[in-house]
Amino acid sequence: MGSTTNQTFDEFLSTTRTISDLTAASSVLGWDQETYMPDGAAEERAEQIATLNALIHQMMTSDKAGKLVEELVSNGSAADLSEWQIAALREFSREREQAVKLPDEFVREMSKVTSLAQQSWKKARSKSDFSIFRDSLAKIIDIKRRHAQYLGYKENPYDALIDLYEPGMKVEQLRPVFERLQEGTARLLDKIDQSGADISDAVLFTDFDPSAQLSFAREVIKKLGFNFTDGRVDLSTHPFCASFGIRDVRLTTRVYRDDLRSCLFGLIHEAGHGMYEQGIDKAYSRTPLADGTSMGIHESQSLFWENMVGRSLEFWKWAYPSLQSQFPERLSDISADSFFRIVNVMKSSMIRVEADELTYNLHIILRFEIEDDLINGRMNVDDIPEAWNTKMEEYLGITPANDAEGCLQDVHWSFGGHGYFPSYSLGKLYAAMFYQAMLKDLPEHHKQIERGEFGDLLSWLREKVHRWGKAKSPAELTNEICGEPLSEGAFLTYIEKKINQVYYNQT
Amino acid sequence: MGSTTNQTFDEFLSTTRTISDLTAASSVLGWDQETYMPDGAAEERAEQIATLNALIHQMMTSDKAGKLVEELVSNGSAADLSEWQIAALREFSREREQAVKLPDEFVREMSKVTSLAQQSWKKARSKSDFSIFRDSLAKIIDIKRRHAQYLGYKENPYDALIDLYEPGMKVEQLRPVFERLQEGTARLLDKIDQSGADISDAVLFTDFDPSAQLSFAREVIKKLGFNFTDGRVDLSTHPFCASFGIRDVRLTTRVYRDDLRSCLFGLIHEAGHGMYEQGIDKAYSRTPLADGTSMGIHESQSLFWENMVGRSLEFWKWAYPSLQSQFPERLSDISADSFFRIVNVMKSSMIRVEADELTYNLHIILRFEIEDDLINGRMNVDDIPEAWNTKMEEYLGITPANDAEGCLQDVHWSFGGHGYFPSYSLGKLYAAMFYQAMLKDLPEHHKQIERGEFGDLLSWLREKVHRWGKAKSPAELTNEICGEPLSEGAFLTYIEKKINQVYYNQT
Repeated sequence: MGSTTNQTFDEFLSTTRTISDLTAASSVLGWDQETYMPDGAAEERAEQIATLNALIHQMMTSDKAGKLVEELVSNGSAADLSEWQIAALREFSREREQAVKLPDEFVREMSKVTSLAQQSWKKARSKSDFSIFRDSLAKIIDIKRRHAQYLGYKENPYDALIDLYEPGMKVEQLRPVFERLQEGTARLLDKIDQSGADISDAVLFTDFDPSAQLSFAREVIKKLGFNFTDGRVDLSTHPFCASFGIRDVRLTTRVYRDDLRSCLFGLIHEAGHGMYEQGIDKAYSRTPLADGTSMGIHESQSLFWENMVGRSLEFWKWAYPSLQSQFPERLSDISADSFFRIVNVMKSSMIRVEADELTYNLHIILRFEIEDDLINGRMNVDDIPEAWNTKMEEYLGITPANDAEGCLQDVHWSFGGHGYFPSYSLGKLYAAMFYQAMLKDLPEHHKQIERGEFGDLLSWLREKVHRWGKAKSPAELTNEICGEPLSEGAFLTYIEKKINQVYYNQT
Repeated sequence: MGSTTNQTFDEFLSTTRTISDLTAASSVLGWDQETYMPDGAAEERAEQIATLNALIHQMMTSDKAGKLVEELVSNGSAADLSEWQIAALREFSREREQAVKLPDEFVREMSKVTSLAQQSWKKARSKSDFSIFRDSLAKIIDIKRRHAQYLGYKENPYDALIDLYEPGMKVEQLRPVFERLQEGTARLLDKIDQSGADISDAVLFTDFDPSAQLSFAREVIKKLGFNFTDGRVDLSTHPFCASFGIRDVRLTTRVYRDDLRSCLFGLIHEAGHGMYEQGIDKAYSRTPLADGTSMGIHESQSLFWENMVGRSLEFWKWAYPSLQSQFPERLSDISADSFFRIVNVMKSSMIRVEADELTYNLHIILRFEIEDDLINGRMNVDDIPEAWNTKMEEYLGITPANDAEGCLQDVHWSFGGHGYFPSYSLGKLYAAMFYQAMLKDLPEHHKQIERGEFGDLLSWLREKVHRWGKAKSPAELTNEICGEPLSEGAFLTYIEKKINQVYYNQT
C-alpha cells in the first residue's frame, strides 16, 4: 500500500490499540469486581471504571480519530488497504459514529438514570411490586426512545436499539421469523403433550457435592477445547465470560448443591463464548476486530456447545460414566439414555433463564413484542404487567402469580438494555443453522462426540466463525456458512429431532 | 477559600483523580499478572500496562497539569488552600517535576535496557556467571548516572536516586548513621558469640502442611487488625502488597512446606504494609496523598509488625498454643519461650532476604557503599564481584562461594533500582524509633500483646503514621513522633534487649 496510507493506518492502529488496552483494563477491573474484589472497594472501583470508560469514549470520539478515519476512507486510499485493514476501519467507524451521535449530556443522563433504576428494580423485584420500578422504567423508556432518535433509523426506532447488539438486524426481518418460530413451537409443544410421556427431572435437584461438580465441569470444558493456558475459570454470582485479549479469556460459573444443571451447563455455555474469543485470528490482537461480531453470533457459540453438544445423546454416552462415578449415590440407577432425557425435559415455566431449549424462545418473543410496542409508543409503561401476563398465558399457557416472576424478573430493562433480548433467540437460530451446515461437512460428527473427540468440531467452528472476529458481519457469516439468511427452519428441524428422541424414544 | 482558587483546585483534583484511577487500574493489572493471569496472556498484558503507564506519564507531564499547579502556587492563592490541599499540591508537584525532568527518549531507553537486563540477570544468576550480566549492568549504571544528572542534586548524584524512594534523604545524612549502625552490629555479634549459646532453628525447616500454615497466618493478621472487608490475601511467587485504593488492599504470600517462616512472617510483613494503606485518611482517596510517604516509612510499618510484634516473646506467649495445636507432631516438645528464641536466631548468612534482624543491615550497608561508589564513578562494573566478596568477609565474616550467592542475588540492579536498598535499613531504624516512642505512650503494650490485644497499638500507628499518607514527609513524621531526626540508637537498644532475651535468657 502507499506509504502515506501506510503511515496513516499505523497512526490509526496506534489509536485503536490504546483504546483496546484501556477497554481490556476496564474489563479486568470489572472481572475482579465480580470475582475477588473485597466489598469495601465498591465505591473506589466504580470511579476507576467510570474514569477508564470516559477516557475510552473521549478517544473514540476525538477529532484526531475522526480525521484519521476520514483520511483513510475519503482519500480513496482505502484501495491501498488489505481486507482486514478495511474491516478494522469499518468496525471502528461504525462504533465511532454511534458514539459521536450521542451528546455528552445525554450519555451522562442515561448513565445516571440507569444507575438509579437498577437499585429501584432490585427493590421492586424483591418486594414483587412493579409500582416501585414504574417511574424509573418510564424514564428509561423515554431515554431509549430519544436514544433511537439520536442514532437514527429508517423504518422503526427499535431497529436502532437492536442494531447496538446485532449490527444490521431489523424488526422487519425479525418479525416474520419470530412468528414462524412461535407457530412451530406451539405445534411442537402439542407434539410433546401428545406423547403422553412425563419425564421427571427431580433427581437434578437433590444433593451434589459442589467441588465435585466444579471439577467435573472443568474437565468437560478442557476436553471440549477451552484452552487453560490462555484462560481460566473462577466463581461469581452470575456466570459470565470476559476477554482481556485473545490469549486471556476468563470464564466464571456458580455451583448450587441442589441443582446439577447450573454449574455444568453454565460452564459449557461460557466456554462456548470463551472458545469463540480464543479462536479469533491472533493477528487481530488489540485491533477493532478482536471481538465477537455480534451478541447473537456470540450466543450461537455458547448455545452450540451447551445444547447441540452438551445436551446431545452422544455427549452423554461419552460423559455419563464419569459423572456417574462422581455421584454414584444419586446416579447409579439412571442410565445415560435416561439422563439425556432428564436434561432435556421441555415444559412451560415462568423464568426465562430456567427455560428449556424449546420454550425459551417464547419468553424472548414476548419481550421483543413489548419492547417494540414501548419504543414505538404503542404501549404505556403502566400496561406492561398486564401485557406480560396476557402474553404468558397466550404463548406458554401459564400466568405469573406476581410481578417478581413476571415482568420484573430480568435485569435488562433497568440498565436500558432494550434491544438486547432478541440476541438470545438469534443465538439459538444461528446455532441451529451452523449445526445443520456442520453436519454436512462432518458426517462423522456424532460418532466423534460419542468417543469424546471434539477437535474436528472446534476446528470447523474456528474456520467458519471464530477466526473472523468482527471481520465478517452476522449476515455475511450466515450467508457464507449456510447459503441463506437468518431463518427458523434449522432450529425447528433440530429441536423436533430432539423431541423425537426424548419424548418418542426415536434414536 | 477564594472561589477562583476553589475552581482551579477542583480542576487540579479532577486531573489527579484521573491519574489516581489509571494508576489503580495499572496496579490491578499488575496484581492479576502475579496471582491469577493465565500464562498465555503475558504479551498482551505487558502492552496494556505499558499503555496505562504511558497515559499516566502523559497526564502527569501535560501542560494542562503544569498550568494548574503554577496557577495554584504562584498566584499566591495557595494561601486560600487548606493544609491537606497544600500537601496534595506539593506531592503532585514533586512527582511531576521528577517526571518532567526526564526526556521521553531517555525514559524509553531506560525501559528498554532494564527490560533486557532483567532477562540477562536471570540467566547470569541461574548460571552463577557475572560475565553474562556484566554488559547490561554497565549500561544500567551509565543510565542511572545520567538519570541522576537529569534529576539534579547538590552534593552527591546518588542522592538524586535515593530521593526517588526516600524523599529528602541524602548520603551525607545516611553515611554516619550507617557507620555507627555497623559498629554497633559488630559489637552485638561479638556479644552473641560470647554468650556461647548455640540455638538450633532446624525444626523450622521440617514438614508443615501448607494449608494449615496459610490459615494460621490469615488468622494472625486478622487479629493484628488487617481489615478483610477492605482487602484480601492471595498466593504469588514473590510476596507483595498492592493497594488499588484505601479500601482495596491486596496482600500476597507464598507457602513452603519445609520452611515455617516464609508464609507466616511474610504475611505479617505484608499485612504491616497493608494496614498502613488501609489506615490512610479516607478523605485522601484518589488524591496524591493516598499512599505511603516513602519506601522507608512503608518498610517501617511492615517491619514493626513482623519483628517488634511478630518476633516478640509476648506475641509467642499468645500465639504459640494455637500454632502448636496446628502442628503437634513438630512442636509439642518445644515451649513458647524456646520457639521465640528459635525464630530469633542471629548469625551471618549469604542471602539478604534470609538474613536475621541484626545482620540484615550489614547486607544493606554493603550495597549502599557499592552503589555510592558506582554512581560516583569510583568503582567500575568489573570490580563489583571482588568488592562484594571482600566486604562480605569484612562485615559478616563469610565469603560467597559464587556470584549467585554473592553480587547476583538481588533483582534490584537489573531493573535500575539503585537507591532502593537503603530503604530497607531505614525501615528498620524508623520502626525502632517509633517503637521506642510507642512504649512511652502505651506502657501496657507488652501485656496487651500477651493477651492478643492489638487494638491500641494499631490505633497508635494509625494516629501517628498511617492517617497522614503522603501529607507528612518521612522527616516530619520522625521529628513529630520521636522528637529527633533519623538515628541508629533506638534500633541498637531494641535489638540488644532482644539479644539479651534470646542469648542471655534475660526476660
